[in-house]
Amino acid sequence: MVATGAAVPEALPEAIPEEAREVVPDDIVRARAYLLRVAEPPAPHTGRFVALAGPVEAAAAIRRGDVSRKVAGETSARRAADRVSADLAAAAECGARLLCPEDPEWPHWPFACFGLTPSDELVPPLALWVRGRGSLAALCERAVAVVGARAATGYGTHTAADLAGGLVVAGSTVVSGAALGIDGAAHRGALAAGGPTVAVLACGVDRPYPSSHTALLQRIPERGLVVSEYPPGAVPARHRFLVRNRLIAALSAGTVVVEAARRSGAQRTAADARALGTVVMAVPGPVGSAVSAGCHELIRQGALLVTRAEEITEATGRLGIELAREPDRPARPTDGLDPAQVRVHGALPPRSARDVRWLAEEAGLAQDTVRAALLHLEERGLAEYRDGRWQRRSAKEAPD
Amino acid sequence: MVATGAAVPEALPEAIPEEAREVVPDDIVRARAYLLRVAEPPAPHTGRFVALAGPVEAAAAIRRGDVSRKVAGETSARRAADRVSADLAAAAECGARLLCPEDPEWPHWPFACFGLTPSDELVPPLALWVRGRGSLAALCERAVAVVGARAATGYGTHTAADLAGGLVVAGSTVVSGAALGIDGAAHRGALAAGGPTVAVLACGVDRPYPSSHTALLQRIPERGLVVSEYPPGAVPARHRFLVRNRLIAALSAGTVVVEAARRSGAQRTAADARALGTVVMAVPGPVGSAVSAGCHELIRQGALLVTRAEEITEATGRLGIELAREPDRPARPTDGLDPAQVRVHGALPPRSARDVRWLAEEAGLAQDTVRAALLHLEERGLAEYRDGRWQRRSAKEAPD
Repeated sequence: MVATGAAVPEALPEAIPEEAREVVPDDIVRARAYLLRVAEPPAPHTGRFVALAGPVEAAAAIRRGDVSRKVAGETSARRAADRVSADLAAAAECGARLLCPEDPEWPHWPFACFGLTPSDELVPPLALWVRGRGSLAALCERAVAVVGARAATGYGTHTAADLAGGLVVAGSTVVSGAALGIDGAAHRGALAAGGPTVAVLACGVDRPYPSSHTALLQRIPERGLVVSEYPPGAVPARHRFLVRNRLIAALSAGTVVVEAARRSGAQRTAADARALGTVVMAVPGPVGSAVSAGCHELIRQGALLVTRAEEITEATGRLGIELAREPDRPARPTDGLDPAQVRVHGALPPRSARDVRWLAEEAGLAQDTVRAALLHLEERGLAEYRDGRWQRRSAKEAPD
Repeated sequence: MVATGAAVPEALPEAIPEEAREVVPDDIVRARAYLLRVAEPPAPHTGRFVALAGPVEAAAAIRRGDVSRKVAGETSARRAADRVSADLAAAAECGARLLCPEDPEWPHWPFACFGLTPSDELVPPLALWVRGRGSLAALCERAVAVVGARAATGYGTHTAADLAGGLVVAGSTVVSGAALGIDGAAHRGALAAGGPTVAVLACGVDRPYPSSHTALLQRIPERGLVVSEYPPGAVPARHRFLVRNRLIAALSAGTVVVEAARRSGAQRTAADARALGTVVMAVPGPVGSAVSAGCHELIRQGALLVTRAEEITEATGRLGIELAREPDRPARPTDGLDPAQVRVHGALPPRSARDVRWLAEEAGLAQDTVRAALLHLEERGLAEYRDGRWQRRSAKEAPD
């Protein structure tokens, strides 16, 4: 709602005060905590079963083993695990809570994109562990993902931080994955601009991973949220990064890849963003840089090349409201001249004066055409008439 | 015809031996030399008149002033100038000749693009002064324009030379404008690869302009051609650079802009290329670079992003013959695994062994699924079975 170019937003998306929060019934919270512990995401069959039977009934049936073969395939290995109370306690200890689809804070609108393409990979989470005071739905009303390589260059991290800061100033939330390199720079750039940022983790929200981002992961909840579908204590396994990427893409109106090697996780996030129908953008870089190669490949495949936050806002904002301003182009004194006027202006000697006949031959134009052009140039302050001869008037002396 | 990746072409396009050359009648050559001297390009009305009346008759009528008002507007200022013999002598002195549309060397096919859009700016030349032994038609059978900013960066000139060299190796001629910066680097890169290059000037072919390119302009005719529609001795005026750009675009199957500021001459060449129906390409660079901003703008407007000569050849070559090879991607031992196999592989501890039940819980998969995945991983050399337990096998030990 803040227009492009406005100052830093004064207030963060309203955190819902504890007392005003519509309380999700405890049995639903406990059922969904159980489901997140039991079904390793993405669990498409379990998700469909929960949608059909309701979370409490679905959880009870899974616990009993009284489910279809497909749901059993996703839940049998861990169904006996009963760590609900421990998970809720661990979450409370680190200031996290379980956000359920039954909660008004649930980002229904962003997650609607999961319905676009039938897929067993691109499915919504069963619930989300969140750490921080903001409302996820409010934070993601205008959100852009800024992601990229762990092994980023200084150019990449600088650009990521810069774009993230610009997005915050334009009123957007910056979503990323808290990884080393581009992700961390994006979160830091957003925080430095005073704005909201959401980190979606591939491990429990209580785990400081990567360890060098411990302080960053403490600061993000003050201005946004740390989010994960993995229960407290869960370790980041390799496949979880790829599975997690779909949430980064889904929570954002568009995904910007700042630096990425070919075949990288960031390219996967971009593929998810494309499959989910959101805007895929990439930042160019030097052609020799291996971590720009993935970005260039994305652009060649149709991703939008972006270089400034305004271009990102234009592509992801409400249609017609936020068009990127053209960067100021240097106005030239000869702007708007027609071809004959340009030719006559070019023929005018800078330091000596010539008559119309000489100028006509020099410019290769009829004398009438040259005379008309000279009058126009004189009016624009680009030519000067003295004693029957014409001379160029330097642009610097030209009046505004 | 030389395939991508082939060695440097062994021979330059056949220079037509003097004695075998179909001689264009002298009156036609003299008429066209007169027309190039009299009509400042682009001269659309004169061009149409010449096409209709023939060069000899048209030149005679123009000399007499017996022409339509529009043709007179393009020719009256200089029609009395009779410098034909002087121009031919000056050309001969510097090893140049006048190439006429009546000559078999005339690039009819590339210039056919001028007929695509009715325009008073994008019109073919009335003739061309050429310096060098090559055949312009043969040189332009497979030609790519590589153009860009005068105020280029080291990154830009390096990239231009690199792409030009790659294009030559792939069997293309590199066309450019011999300007400082990107143009010069493109010609030099082509020459360094031993290959053909064509410089289209905005002044006479006898003028060493810019003066720091004197040696370069001497070397180009040995491996290609220096070309201009301006008569010998003509000075480079500002509007001539813009008018000249259409020839660079028209002689090439595609135009690559390597570095360009917004509103630059290179952007104009790209606009000409687009209007002429040829392929517009641009090289990305750092987002903070003012001389990459024009390239990024072009890509955002639909130009193809290119980073390697193969990508240029693919876009400009004959369809289906020259597809850019994907650069070698590092093959990963886990390539081709299905999601369950990836999860089980991720759950396998690198240094200790675990049973199927433990792995099933860790991966969140049914034990049957885990067993099937483990057998596949064992077959691929990624997992090892020992005493009832499974262990990850490091990728480095895995057989091919």
